Amino acid sequence: MKIDGKPYRSIWAEADGRTVGIIDQTRLPHSFVTRQLKSLDDAATAIADMWVRGAPLIGATAAYGMAIAMRQDASDESLMKAYAVLHATRPTAINLKWALDETVRLLQPLPSEQRADAAWALAATLCDADVAVNHAIGSHGLELIKAIAARKEPGEAVNILTHCNAGWLATVDWGTATSPIYQAHDLGIEVHVWVDETRPRNQGASLTSWELGRHGVDHTLIVDNAGGHLMQHGKVDMCIVGTDRTTASGDVCNKIGTYLKALAARDNGVPFYVALPSSTVDWTINDGVREIPIEERDGREVSWMAGKDANGVETKVLICPETTPVANFAFDVTPSRLVTGLITERGVCSASQAGLAKLFPEMAKGQNKVRAV
Amino acid sequence: MKIDGKPYRSIWAEADGRTVGIIDQTRLPHSFVTRQLKSLDDAATAIADMWVRGAPLIGATAAYGMAIAMRQDASDESLMKAYAVLHATRPTAINLKWALDETVRLLQPLPSEQRADAAWALAATLCDADVAVNHAIGSHGLELIKAIAARKEPGEAVNILTHCNAGWLATVDWGTATSPIYQAHDLGIEVHVWVDETRPRNQGASLTSWELGRHGVDHTLIVDNAGGHLMQHGKVDMCIVGTDRTTASGDVCNKIGTYLKALAARDNGVPFYVALPSSTVDWTINDGVREIPIEERDGREVSWMAGKDANGVETKVLICPETTPVANFAFDVTPSRLVTGLITERGVCSASQAGLAKLFPEMAKGQNKVRAV
Repeated sequence: MKIDGKPYRSIWAEADGRTVGIIDQTRLPHSFVTRQLKSLDDAATAIADMWVRGAPLIGATAAYGMAIAMRQDASDESLMKAYAVLHATRPTAINLKWALDETVRLLQPLPSEQRADAAWALAATLCDADVAVNHAIGSHGLELIKAIAARKEPGEAVNILTHCNAGWLATVDWGTATSPIYQAHDLGIEVHVWVDETRPRNQGASLTSWELGRHGVDHTLIVDNAGGHLMQHGKVDMCIVGTDRTTASGDVCNKIGTYLKALAARDNGVPFYVALPSSTVDWTINDGVREIPIEERDGREVSWMAGKDANGVETKVLICPETTPVANFAFDVTPSRLVTGLITERGVCSASQAGLAKLFPEMAKGQNKVRAV
Repeated sequence: MKIDGKPYRSIWAEADGRTVGIIDQTRLPHSFVTRQLKSLDDAATAIADMWVRGAPLIGATAAYGMAIAMRQDASDESLMKAYAVLHATRPTAINLKWALDETVRLLQPLPSEQRADAAWALAATLCDADVAVNHAIGSHGLELIKAIAARKEPGEAVNILTHCNAGWLATVDWGTATSPIYQAHDLGIEVHVWVDETRPRNQGASLTSWELGRHGVDHTLIVDNAGGHLMQHGKVDMCIVGTDRTTASGDVCNKIGTYLKALAARDNGVPFYVALPSSTVDWTINDGVREIPIEERDGREVSWMAGKDANGVETKVLICPETTPVANFAFDVTPSRLVTGLITERGVCSASQAGLAKLFPEMAKGQNKVRAV
């Protein structure tokens, strides 16, 4: 999407064919800093230190990390070393391992002199594929926004609430939840986004606010507590959120607090949509609340808040007594009964086994096999 | 309640009969600082600069401010000036005006040489009355906790979720939502409190965590987003919150985000109680969502976060881009259908016109009169 009028992706190959550009997302929103990844170590650091984040972007960075390594040394040893180094950066990221496996599968049979070009081409292909999937999600979600816009008076915006950052910064471009929003905006449909700040890591305040603002999409930052009040008063036309993991029955595991917004949407008759690439569907599980383990993270993410002080210095402040015990659950599960629909790259379906199976019959069959075993 | 073993109220008359002690709540949780109010100006500053906050405590401070002024000069002019100065501190605080009116009504007919002692006695009486009401709320709420504790295995705590600070710091002592918790704790019943941090002003993180911790009550700080997840997983036995304003039909206007917790409680079969002195009931209105205007406050309360940095310096940090538009709604309304019961100084009743009328027949009659007009 655009940053102050200039088109960007979150990752790109530089013209020299051996360097990769990224946005250092740890510096957002207070500083816009791009970085050049020139070595395997650079790529590993970018992932490990979270200069890049979001599953699709982590996968893309890993693929480009392999390509950078191959440009330096395309031997079998180098290939295995690059895999190991990148794999160790964030061991639980599924897209990371998937991208690395794809790269090794492609390169291993090739003579070493062909590996670098093949790796660069593969990384570019993986990035383009992510962009295409997100764009498709956006075009299906766009129809939902258009339908609401058609019921509005001229000059009235479609009000959309989102939680966390399922934006273009988390993907290569477009984002998932934001893709319909950007497409509506680019078509001239008036949209206004309520951005949940998304405690404890404030991805809404720091990333979603930033990317919407820089692209020029009208938006307002609110605390996570405010969505219910807004929905009670007719100020939200629809919710669109992302998902980290979706069950075969349409339960949605997303950033902590998503479930509370879904409850408020249901209580006030506001449609609640989840945008997702089908790669987030775990076809082997059904009951999200019972079957998905929820990561507990360091309590200091809650008790220490990062920002920029009045002198412009980026710092962290403690917001509770030093001795206060803290719990930090990263995700929650929104049961499918609260989800109006899933917006996928193949279209919108009900949040149910039948809905998903109709759009992804080949995957749903796979699930039956797994369950039969 | 106790601070590290020593009993405190949030306001107290010093032994000299002309000075009042308070806790400077703007310094919590990072510094425990008491202040001496020795003049009318001191008392006015304490209210205006929010050294004291919470409706009952503001009322008590105003009454003591009148008493301090009378000790210095008990003339009619001084009485009227003290009223005006204190009334101007926070013009919308209902308890403030009520306490000032009570004081003037008592003092005006008295000869000036009797006014100071009468004002000090009245302030003490108002404080004791607040403590008595809150203690009564606690003793009724205690029975609800006892009933849950009776179903627990030995060693299992009763898990209570609360939002914002309806604690002893907001009143003269005991608090409202916290009063049943302190009484259970003091009786040796194992209780554990999930403390919502309560964005944007973080009263849970900074005040509720502090007062529970200093009294020795087991608790855990969580983000406002986490309560739904905890309830889905059986980790909350009951919710108890306070209220700023309650309608005659039992709708509850409390800190923004309360409604979302009530929805989660309903969805998971967790009892949701509201603790309140009957003085918060507005007998003239019924439909809280439609009839209660919600205050919108400065957006900087959302975008700037106060805390203590790693060097121990108290400061504020900006958590979003400087140009991000922000909305800041202070309260929301929880409809009575989501409230399991109201815990009042006269007992627990259903959140309904009938429930309230049964406990407060004289007030409910008053309501009919108002509505007939």
